[in-house]
Amino acid sequence: MTITHYHFQTASHIVSGAHSLDLLGEKLDGLGLSGLTSIFILTQPSIVSLGYADHIKSELTKKGITSEISTAIKPEPTEENIEEVFQTFLQGEHDAIIGIGGGSVLDAAKILAVLKTNDEPISALVGTNLVKRRGVPTILIPTTSGTGSEVTPNAIVTFPEKELKIGMVSPHLLPDLVILDPALTLNLPKAITAATGMDAFTHALESYISNKANPFSDMFALESMRLISGSIQEAYHHGENMKAREDMLVGAMYGGMALTSAGTAAVHAMAYPLGGKYKISHGVANSMLLPHVTAFNADHIIDRLEQVAGVIGIAKTDAKRPLAEQVVRQIEAWTADLHIPQQLKAFGVSKEDVPALAQAASEVRRLMDNNPKPMSISDIEQVYMKLLGA
Amino acid sequence: MTITHYHFQTASHIVSGAHSLDLLGEKLDGLGLSGLTSIFILTQPSIVSLGYADHIKSELTKKGITSEISTAIKPEPTEENIEEVFQTFLQGEHDAIIGIGGGSVLDAAKILAVLKTNDEPISALVGTNLVKRRGVPTILIPTTSGTGSEVTPNAIVTFPEKELKIGMVSPHLLPDLVILDPALTLNLPKAITAATGMDAFTHALESYISNKANPFSDMFALESMRLISGSIQEAYHHGENMKAREDMLVGAMYGGMALTSAGTAAVHAMAYPLGGKYKISHGVANSMLLPHVTAFNADHIIDRLEQVAGVIGIAKTDAKRPLAEQVVRQIEAWTADLHIPQQLKAFGVSKEDVPALAQAASEVRRLMDNNPKPMSISDIEQVYMKLLGA
Repeated sequence: MTITHYHFQTASHIVSGAHSLDLLGEKLDGLGLSGLTSIFILTQPSIVSLGYADHIKSELTKKGITSEISTAIKPEPTEENIEEVFQTFLQGEHDAIIGIGGGSVLDAAKILAVLKTNDEPISALVGTNLVKRRGVPTILIPTTSGTGSEVTPNAIVTFPEKELKIGMVSPHLLPDLVILDPALTLNLPKAITAATGMDAFTHALESYISNKANPFSDMFALESMRLISGSIQEAYHHGENMKAREDMLVGAMYGGMALTSAGTAAVHAMAYPLGGKYKISHGVANSMLLPHVTAFNADHIIDRLEQVAGVIGIAKTDAKRPLAEQVVRQIEAWTADLHIPQQLKAFGVSKEDVPALAQAASEVRRLMDNNPKPMSISDIEQVYMKLLGA
Repeated sequence: MTITHYHFQTASHIVSGAHSLDLLGEKLDGLGLSGLTSIFILTQPSIVSLGYADHIKSELTKKGITSEISTAIKPEPTEENIEEVFQTFLQGEHDAIIGIGGGSVLDAAKILAVLKTNDEPISALVGTNLVKRRGVPTILIPTTSGTGSEVTPNAIVTFPEKELKIGMVSPHLLPDLVILDPALTLNLPKAITAATGMDAFTHALESYISNKANPFSDMFALESMRLISGSIQEAYHHGENMKAREDMLVGAMYGGMALTSAGTAAVHAMAYPLGGKYKISHGVANSMLLPHVTAFNADHIIDRLEQVAGVIGIAKTDAKRPLAEQVVRQIEAWTADLHIPQQLKAFGVSKEDVPALAQAASEVRRLMDNNPKPMSISDIEQVYMKLLGA
């Protein structure tokens, strides 16, 4: 028996349930964060429009805490954008931060919290375990069911001059409190529900087939796939279904927990260059790649895909085709039903770009090394070519 | 649809796997705990005899950290015992604590950590959320597969003059790092393997049938029961089986995670008075009570017990008897195979003591209120009477 060590880390406190945002004030007391005087609320315009940022502000006012709302973080933010918002954060002399929004907002909130306590620029902190000190108290409230950022020790920064995204990875990025309130996701546009939901499923599936999969990550990955597979179509077609939204939100968080322990693999490696140069959002890039990479991997992960079949509701008795193949078909069926873009051309990618994309993807060794079936440059090129209709 | 909030909290970092104790030094760096100069190692004589305490001491010495080993905590420690050890801890001017041992050692380590930073006696901190400040950095290394104390925000203190055990409950009791090394449990005596293992199963089962059960606790509870049911007999009869020991250790931790979210119920309420007055260990008391209380509850939790049947390996096709009944029989079969004591008489309890025991148990409202089937004083008396052969 090969014996290996495996690891798990997560946010120390998580609250879930419809309208759990209303518990914010009470939770601040319970967590021993009651000495706070001023909080920076980092969010995005859509959340302000829905009234949630003002709601939080008034809840904080009731507790005698002043606050400032900022929507200055852009989607998939650059180093420069984050540094800029950090100056506002500093000037306000806030002693804690609340991030409420999608993955970009949550990632930025995690970064601002440690920038405040570590006397270093972002460029010195990206990479693994370079953050020396715990940040200021951080509360994360996701409004998409996708990245799982609220429970991962990772935050992604875009460096446009290098056409690159780099992760900051540190246990100090884990927040003090996570609030999962599915009511906040009821108004999520369909395209975002689709792309972020399939992104979350990708996290779970890649963690489950990763070379670093382990008993911790397996439990979260399987439960994540069970929840997402049972709710993603309902959440897409009937966005107002609170139960489906809750299952998506919890499922996405479990996906984040799974990837924290097991890492992701080739889908993520291949998605990065699409984001860096062609500005394809992380969720869309992952969703486009997932069926093709899974089909490529399938013969190396038959047993694992059979387990996946079990949790996503493909019964053994239906097995006219091998279960592993049925899982790939199911993923394809979802991407079709959810209208996930299927063609890279629409994003300005042409066949001539494929060698450079494949080269860039193959250099993401940290993730490619997790892939259960080794991918040559030519294998990678062939997958990208499928997304060009070739 | 009734919508409720539910909560989950746990240790921020967990490492698991055979010989993962060897990762201690490396993990101290990774957690940003590398500035430590002196650590108090709280343990018990059996662990010192096996050489583990000295092993940790020499690992710390290599990193330039001084340390002091103490075995002065007694099983199910009293307020006085903990205060006494706290004086030693203070005199040593240590800036962190490692607890390596069974549940009593882990609970005491958690308490010492917060005593150091909160200027209050134990009596002022027992109860819920009365600990104001985070403790000194704490690392917990369980050597039994039972309490799950390494991941719960609870610590139990015995107050002998009141014949009572009281819990200190606070998120500040959660440790910074947990190391789950099954190699440390290979030498666990059979009786301890049995009682602590059934205690862990009790945590999972009670969390699963608790009125506060929720999607978080259910996932941990089911996985806990799956792991423990598949390994408890092997761990008991062939203690050297590393895989069985690992499954027990992870299963017990998941039990702790489940109970943190959902609470326990009547078994625990009824076990407390047996511990306070008759010194029956927590694990033995829970194990004795589990089959009888589950039989009492069965008709109120048929659906849930059917799910339990699924994860503990009772196949639907075997169903000559109702699945719920088979679960109760399986628990009875385990307690027999594992030689769990079945008679309260051996502990000096007689029929005349039952009314007072039942009264005391019924007063543990926090737990009794979680029980899915209400228990009258007379119901409670009848369960205790069964353990007196009546």
